[in-house]
Amino acid sequence: MMYRIGVDLGGTNIAVGLVDENWSIVGTASTPTRPENGAAGVVRDIAQTIQNTLIFGGVSISDCAGIGVGSPGNCDSAGGIVRNAHNLNWDSVPLCAMLETAAGLPARLANDGDCAALGEVVAGAAKGSGSALLVTLGTGVGAGLILDGKIRSGHRSLGGEFGHMCIQMGGEACTCGQKGCWEAYASATALIRQARRAAAEHPESALNAAAKLDGRSIYAAAEAGDATAREITARYAEYVGVGLVNLVNALFPEVILLGGGVAGAGEALFGPVREFVSRNLFVGDPALCPPILPAALGNDAGIIGAAALWK
Amino acid sequence: MMYRIGVDLGGTNIAVGLVDENWSIVGTASTPTRPENGAAGVVRDIAQTIQNTLIFGGVSISDCAGIGVGSPGNCDSAGGIVRNAHNLNWDSVPLCAMLETAAGLPARLANDGDCAALGEVVAGAAKGSGSALLVTLGTGVGAGLILDGKIRSGHRSLGGEFGHMCIQMGGEACTCGQKGCWEAYASATALIRQARRAAAEHPESALNAAAKLDGRSIYAAAEAGDATAREITARYAEYVGVGLVNLVNALFPEVILLGGGVAGAGEALFGPVREFVSRNLFVGDPALCPPILPAALGNDAGIIGAAALWK
Repeated sequence: MMYRIGVDLGGTNIAVGLVDENWSIVGTASTPTRPENGAAGVVRDIAQTIQNTLIFGGVSISDCAGIGVGSPGNCDSAGGIVRNAHNLNWDSVPLCAMLETAAGLPARLANDGDCAALGEVVAGAAKGSGSALLVTLGTGVGAGLILDGKIRSGHRSLGGEFGHMCIQMGGEACTCGQKGCWEAYASATALIRQARRAAAEHPESALNAAAKLDGRSIYAAAEAGDATAREITARYAEYVGVGLVNLVNALFPEVILLGGGVAGAGEALFGPVREFVSRNLFVGDPALCPPILPAALGNDAGIIGAAALWK
Repeated sequence: MMYRIGVDLGGTNIAVGLVDENWSIVGTASTPTRPENGAAGVVRDIAQTIQNTLIFGGVSISDCAGIGVGSPGNCDSAGGIVRNAHNLNWDSVPLCAMLETAAGLPARLANDGDCAALGEVVAGAAKGSGSALLVTLGTGVGAGLILDGKIRSGHRSLGGEFGHMCIQMGGEACTCGQKGCWEAYASATALIRQARRAAAEHPESALNAAAKLDGRSIYAAAEAGDATAREITARYAEYVGVGLVNLVNALFPEVILLGGGVAGAGEALFGPVREFVSRNLFVGDPALCPPILPAALGNDAGIIGAAALWK
């Protein structure tokens, strides 16, 4: 049995998994990310955590094909370089070369969202699909595109910023400095902003009584019949849907997966989104709409997808 | 020398080219398209025109690897079927099988816009690029995406409809029935509509004196200093740019080509478009912006790209 090592490098945690040939995680270890120690320190911690994973798993380094790393920020996969990752305070870090020296195994690198998409294709909700788009509805809107089984993040991995597709010229301000980005309408942050505004206009709404306004409480209020929350969640599904329609019209992935916090709303989100997308596609026939499914692997997707860089 | 036969099947004309291994057209022939004779009649005409091309070129059928066809409408490349092509009144025509029987050579099929993009990559303005996006600013907005040297038109070739990306929710009505599509802002048709409206609001504008309001006369008026025409062409460049920014953020092609009637405006269009796109990309650094160049092959792109389906 040949193994791959998948590393999910996050702003707060380094998660390492030993992944077998069936893309199952057979051993894990993790450690806090300590950006204050610089890139060299973080790489040392990654290498140590990999070693722990191997020891716990009883697997020799010679049984491993390589290390795959999913990193935040903009990654140059061909060069093995993290161009910039704000939450690590990294700028042009040659992660693969450093990790190869520290861990004694060749390393490959991709953006963490792209790795998650690849993980879902090899072992998750898009298993068996040649192409898939994973859209993560969280603080922002992230996405990873897989075509012919490969991550497609553009020339020098400079693309993949699907959340910063303008759907409303001159519209809502986005964190990126532009206006009208999909992310400014379809992220969890945007949903909360939409709900806060609506609640202010509708003093009678149950949204005003929520201890905390978040995806969960907004969908719970809608579920309980609050008219304002229902209107907000209905419109939010359209915002998510507009971006998906754009991407299906252009790229027509075989399957679309939604992940991230808001996807936890389940059918209350997926039902209206499917309805909107299938009704508004350029191809016309709703039966041709790709399946829109929940991502299945959660946090494991990033580890498995990073390992699958050695597919 | 092995040759490929490229067929550009249009609503009014069938153009056939004999293409050599350097992707040069070494012989051509053409004949009017007569949809009134049905698909069988059109296929007979294609086969006859191919034969004429071979005779004129002095090339034997045994020196040809195959026939590639660029067809209007929605094409199922894997199945060799034209799903629907409105201007031919075709619905599920098994073009490749019919043509193989009629012409005695294996045939491959793709959408005409996709073939043009492939032609520009193998022999035109994007020669040597691994990825490219060709956007055609004509009656509509068409586009063809090439990644890793291959046409990428999505699952079962159902995608590629980049012109029907929503950039303004609830905006201008599009011919597709939706609102706010890029095409409704960035096509030649849209430019003319924008100029007509502006001319009506500005009786003093030279646009009102134009014999015919089209891309050429609008850009000529702007060039001559007409304030209204200048405002319209400046805003039009932004409309073109918004869609390009979306596509670069998401897909980051190595090079972007613009073709179609409006691209004939040259630097008066390309200058402001480049300026807008490089200033508004998510990656921030304008130096990273892909080159935005005029398509180079004109009508030959479709023939060469169709032949390159046998690459």
